[in-house]
Amino acid sequence: MKEFKTTYPDENYTVHVGHGIFNETLQYYTSGYDDVLYIVDENVHAHFKHTVIKHIKAPVLTRSGEAAKTAEAFMQLVESLLERGIKRSSLVVVIGGGATGDAGGFAASVTLRGVDFIQVPTTLLAHDSAIGGKTAINSSHGKNLIGAFHRPRGVIYDLDFLTTLPEPEILSGFGEVYKHALLNSEKAVTVLMDRTAGGIKAEDLEDSIIEGIRTKMYYVSEDEFESGSRKFLNLGHTLGHAIEYEYKIPHGHAVMLGLYAMMFISNNETDSGLFDLEAHQRYFSNLGYPMEILETLDPVRMLKYMKHDKKNTSDDTVGFILMNNDFQPYFTEIGTGKMVKYIRAMKESL
Amino acid sequence: MKEFKTTYPDENYTVHVGHGIFNETLQYYTSGYDDVLYIVDENVHAHFKHTVIKHIKAPVLTRSGEAAKTAEAFMQLVESLLERGIKRSSLVVVIGGGATGDAGGFAASVTLRGVDFIQVPTTLLAHDSAIGGKTAINSSHGKNLIGAFHRPRGVIYDLDFLTTLPEPEILSGFGEVYKHALLNSEKAVTVLMDRTAGGIKAEDLEDSIIEGIRTKMYYVSEDEFESGSRKFLNLGHTLGHAIEYEYKIPHGHAVMLGLYAMMFISNNETDSGLFDLEAHQRYFSNLGYPMEILETLDPVRMLKYMKHDKKNTSDDTVGFILMNNDFQPYFTEIGTGKMVKYIRAMKESL
Ligand SMILES: NC(=O)c1ccc[n+]([C@@H]2O[C@H](COP(=O)([O-])OP(=O)(O)OC[C@H]3O[C@@H](n4cnc5c(N)ncnc54)[C@H](O)[C@@H]3O)[C@@H](O)[C@H]2O)c1
Ligand SMILES: NC(=O)c1ccc[n+]([C@@H]2O[C@H](COP(=O)([O-])OP(=O)(O)OC[C@H]3O[C@@H](n4cnc5c(N)ncnc54)[C@H](O)[C@@H]3O)[C@@H](O)[C@H]2O)c1
Repeated sequence: MKEFKTTYPDENYTVHVGHGIFNETLQYYTSGYDDVLYIVDENVHAHFKHTVIKHIKAPVLTRSGEAAKTAEAFMQLVESLLERGIKRSSLVVVIGGGATGDAGGFAASVTLRGVDFIQVPTTLLAHDSAIGGKTAINSSHGKNLIGAFHRPRGVIYDLDFLTTLPEPEILSGFGEVYKHALLNSEKAVTVLMDRTAGGIKAEDLEDSIIEGIRTKMYYVSEDEFESGSRKFLNLGHTLGHAIEYEYKIPHGHAVMLGLYAMMFISNNETDSGLFDLEAHQRYFSNLGYPMEILETLDPVRMLKYMKHDKKNTSDDTVGFILMNNDFQPYFTEIGTGKMVKYIRAMKESL
Repeated sequence: MKEFKTTYPDENYTVHVGHGIFNETLQYYTSGYDDVLYIVDENVHAHFKHTVIKHIKAPVLTRSGEAAKTAEAFMQLVESLLERGIKRSSLVVVIGGGATGDAGGFAASVTLRGVDFIQVPTTLLAHDSAIGGKTAINSSHGKNLIGAFHRPRGVIYDLDFLTTLPEPEILSGFGEVYKHALLNSEKAVTVLMDRTAGGIKAEDLEDSIIEGIRTKMYYVSEDEFESGSRKFLNLGHTLGHAIEYEYKIPHGHAVMLGLYAMMFISNNETDSGLFDLEAHQRYFSNLGYPMEILETLDPVRMLKYMKHDKKNTSDDTVGFILMNNDFQPYFTEIGTGKMVKYIRAMKESL
């Protein structure tokens, strides 16, 4: 088992990564609490209820995917915790993908004005979402617009959960693995592309996942509330979220398309050939990402969604993370007119 | 105008109290923000839309009373803020009684994972609720079970708002004024009883309100997250909340009955005549509090509600604040059996 600790001034937590570590590691956390309540993704429950989580009684089940992140599902989740007699001295253990993690973490944050919780990510993507204390549900105006910063007490990433993950979910989760490689170094990207040239297999990715976790932890420890460098984790996400919202495709797929757009715009802004766009287009397509969606984007609708993004503070620009010639991310405001032009130019280039 | 500042290590805020201070004081706050959104209690809006708040365009109105604190009303409130294009750099100004303050503050806390807000209390009770950063909505399992700690950036208490407050609301708000006097000193209680011997008038209470604000600020600055002394502010509230929930009477009325029960139990626990129960019964009745409800309490139902209280951590006791012979509040756990007996004994004594 590998362990990483956040580096906040206080209230730090550990991220445990390994195989078959769930029960033993959890025990270490639960001992200090009066009682433990479980929130479990319905699919994870179906797969593991006779094995690794068989000791869990009366879990609160969440519906698969974004259905867990509606206002109604969320309020029901909170009511279910209260129904089970949750106290301030209880521990909530949230077991599932990013959606369950987001809704469950937010529920722990507002129930009784905040109870402690543990994240147990079960998808590839959730190596990312389970770390950093961001929790959220969706609004009719956009994704993740309602939520809280609420640090988990610990994160237990048992890679054995990934064995039952369907292929599309591996593909989706890989979007964030790829993003973390981009934020890490040019070398990390090359290594990752080599590892996945023949397709993505979770078991080939363990080193890259661990590197990804470290990259994520670095940024969230540096800037918990996203007033500065944490924004860089948004690489690919501003347009990615808009695409996800419009086309209802998985988060990581949308992020990957967003990363491609980021590369396109970065090349144009820095007037360089930093990214080999053709190679990337081929690589992403071969892996199975729906690159054809990029050819159908309606720039004005995309802009409308992007302007709803929490990170945006001004009316006539869109905040965007790009990468410079030194392979470093930077934040910039792109005028709305220019952004429309970039999206059009990208469509034509494909 | 009087001004008081919290004494946290950082992020302190000022409570401004005075007559006709709303607009000028607000200006001082709004200048630093990109835009300002208003959440206004529907009754306050009806009373003041042609005068002191006439400059406010497109406010989000909240329904009067606890109707503002249902899950549905709350989610609609958040969606309305998003609908109006709220950004992280926006300021939310919440104008109304404790219910609007609680729902509005909680909405500010979770919209975009938190935006700044100002409390503008307009009821007598809200001299209390607007201070301390506790926000909440109600659950089907009890009051205020879903919420957040979210400090306002400032509190503007313009006493002119109180002029339109209906009598029952004055009576309700007085419950917290009385509680603060109890927490303040025996002298403060005597003074307050003298001031109100002939009935409660808001204009006679200004000094007591200001003392109440200082008492509240002392406790919330000392112990923001209620791990210690802040619990004392719960004087009268454990049973009070249960009564409020069961009988649907105003918060302050229920608190006053809860304070009477506290006096009854304190006298019994300390085996003293600290409180003159008969005099208090007469005084509360004369002012118009529904003391007769105390004679109808179902101890077992009351216990059930009390056990749902956030402050309770154990199954066979109820956490309760009492007062000792030195007129100091203290926290104690009362066994459930004993509590049932106390409620029965109090019923018989009335
Ligand atoms: N909080 C953050 O910082 C953050 C960061 C990135 C993404 N997110 C959020 O994460 C969500 C996406 O997360 P996700 O991709 O994990 O999606 P998800 O949680 O919807 O899970 C994807 C699917 O896999 C199933 N599943 C989960 N674990 C499984 C397992 N071990 N075996 C079989 N099936 C399993 C789920 O039931 C679901 O059907 C989005 O809502 C996104 O907004 C949050
Ligand atoms: N957050 C805290 O620390 C805290 C502390 C105590 C109470 N509370 C909460 O406060 C709430 C009770 O507050 P409240 O007693 O102010 O009730 P309220 O907000 O329901 O207001 C009472 C009534 O007065 C009306 N009103 C408000 N201002 C008015 C004005 N100036 N003129 C005429 N009418 C006006 C309202 O529309 C409502 O009908 C409860 O929900 C309670 O849980 C919170």
